[in-house]
Amino acid sequence: MTEPAAGGFVVRPIGTVTSPLRDPAQAPKQGDEGAPDAWIAFDPAVADGLRDLRVGAEVLVLTWLDRARREVLTVHPRDDPGRPPTGVFSTRSQDRPNPIGLHRVTILAIDGLRLAVRHLEALDGTPVLDLKPVIGPVSER
Amino acid sequence: MTEPAAGGFVVRPIGTVTSPLRDPAQAPKQGDEGAPDAWIAFDPAVADGLRDLRVGAEVLVLTWLDRARREVLTVHPRDDPGRPPTGVFSTRSQDRPNPIGLHRVTILAIDGLRLAVRHLEALDGTPVLDLKPVIGPVSER
Repeated sequence: MTEPAAGGFVVRPIGTVTSPLRDPAQAPKQGDEGAPDAWIAFDPAVADGLRDLRVGAEVLVLTWLDRARREVLTVHPRDDPGRPPTGVFSTRSQDRPNPIGLHRVTILAIDGLRLAVRHLEALDGTPVLDLKPVIGPVSER
Repeated sequence: MTEPAAGGFVVRPIGTVTSPLRDPAQAPKQGDEGAPDAWIAFDPAVADGLRDLRVGAEVLVLTWLDRARREVLTVHPRDDPGRPPTGVFSTRSQDRPNPIGLHRVTILAIDGLRLAVRHLEALDGTPVLDLKPVIGPVSER
């Protein structure tokens, strides 16, 4: 069983994003809307978990959007005041009760504990929580 | 900024899975491998965030796999001892440093704070952390 913390569970970063994206106002809404390539530097403690990653693989990066506002429950989609307020669970807003970012990227390079990935729409310094493979058809699992 | 906890950040459940799946050994590996339909009961505090969900929509459910082992970094994929040990970040193993489950489901029914979803491979009682829409082409955002 995972150990509960006060009011929840503790996620522990396994790595950090290094990116030219520093200003939230300049960040694209999604990775395929002009996000730059970025590096993820991993904690040596999780090295064994990384060993089967391969250049060219598509992976899901889960991040902790540490600059998000957790008390927000409705937003104007895509920050467009002309669109009616919408429940955050119907949007990809970073502002939400548990601001976990989900990013589909391709691995461009692997250099020890560092991974270069294509089109990551996360700000410089964003903590990384998990990596998962994109899964294909049942026959390939 | 989100507030850091000792060694990380605190995720707070927004709801809980109610499912006939009670035995981890019986759980399918993925939702499309025979997982049952399930209900998610949400905390009244997040009601405003749910209000634009619609029956028929495809959503991603993020869960906290509270029966996972966080110290595991390599596994035999699909619990098959014939397959070589593989880094967890190249697998969908529930055992991983931050055991966040990612489940793609269709909404079958909405009843106040409860949502029925198709094919959720999460055990009864699993905490729910987030819901996100499956995003389509850029033109539809």
